[in-house]
Amino acid sequence: MGRWEPDARSRLERAALELFLAHGFDDVTVPQITARAGLTTRTFHRHFIDKREVLFSDADQMPALAARLVLDAPPELAPLDVVAQGLSTLASAAFEGRLQQLKQRTTVIDGHDGLRERELRKMERLTRAIADAFEQRGVDDLTAAVMAETTVGVVKVALRRWLRSDGEQPLQTIMTDSLTRLRDAFSGTGSPSTSASQPAGQTVDKRPAPRVDRS
Amino acid sequence: MGRWEPDARSRLERAALELFLAHGFDDVTVPQITARAGLTTRTFHRHFIDKREVLFSDADQMPALAARLVLDAPPELAPLDVVAQGLSTLASAAFEGRLQQLKQRTTVIDGHDGLRERELRKMERLTRAIADAFEQRGVDDLTAAVMAETTVGVVKVALRRWLRSDGEQPLQTIMTDSLTRLRDAFSGTGSPSTSASQPAGQTVDKRPAPRVDRS
Repeated sequence: MGRWEPDARSRLERAALELFLAHGFDDVTVPQITARAGLTTRTFHRHFIDKREVLFSDADQMPALAARLVLDAPPELAPLDVVAQGLSTLASAAFEGRLQQLKQRTTVIDGHDGLRERELRKMERLTRAIADAFEQRGVDDLTAAVMAETTVGVVKVALRRWLRSDGEQPLQTIMTDSLTRLRDAFSGTGSPSTSASQPAGQTVDKRPAPRVDRS
Repeated sequence: MGRWEPDARSRLERAALELFLAHGFDDVTVPQITARAGLTTRTFHRHFIDKREVLFSDADQMPALAARLVLDAPPELAPLDVVAQGLSTLASAAFEGRLQQLKQRTTVIDGHDGLRERELRKMERLTRAIADAFEQRGVDDLTAAVMAETTVGVVKVALRRWLRSDGEQPLQTIMTDSLTRLRDAFSGTGSPSTSASQPAGQTVDKRPAPRVDRS
């Protein structure tokens, strides 16, 4: 396999993203990327099939990672807790520390129809993987499907906010906040959609928290 | 504008879908569609810009319709109730009664990359429209964003199940069930992710319905 370049992969990623941003994805060639990274085309192809893979190889592992997080969660965890724990791991394992790279990646993808389509399909695959994993945990298929959609929705919203705010808050905090808002909305305790004159909490259900068996 | 053909639009839709299914979207021309429908190309263009519009002109109105449903809901309704009410209206206004047409449409779109992309983007526009409408109701932007993602997730899941089951259950029932599963999961009372040895339904919450102020 030739000489091992310890940081070759990240150098290639960095070079590729800079070139995509400067010249547009379509106008960048693999030799340009390797030249900028000071590496050979052969090294490039040890890490990536093509230039598109530079944007998606990590992302393509997300479905499998998410499925593992769901499947490996303690069996007694309820779906919502599985999601909360999984999002927390996902944030640190896949996103935190890569803010600038992810921002550049998003800019490149948003500006290119074909890449956007691949990104959207990736999210679909991620949703399916999460739903399948929940079903394997014994969750009924309708709950599995809607929890998967909701989870991916939270990931999308949280990532977008995190990138837009330039990482002002940790991604994990935004994810937790997002889940909390949903929980509030669904348990009928959250900020109601009232007019500003209505005091918060006035119109919502005040029933006691559900009984939880702690035996 | 020429002679008025009362059912021209639906005849053109029916003819187009049949031809798309038989020959593939790319290989069907507008003259073929109009010939099959027994109408003129001129009539076609009174209803649709091009053959793609036959698949998307109704769908393209969904964001505006959804936004209106959110904005027109009584101001005292909490976001979840706005969603529940909106989904119910959406089901009857946009989907129920069009099962066969929607099944054909889905088959055509799923088999074509470009159409799938347009469909995915449509869902993105729908999500944004719902989030914007919630913000206009005074809902904080994070709640608005995650509720919009969740709503569109429910629409996707419910529509898919409804079409796959050939309309065995009313779409509205599936939508309501989907929201209920989410509410159960988020209020920590729903079917927990227990092992398969647990009989279905055994573990779900049996507490009485929440108290509702009927005064």
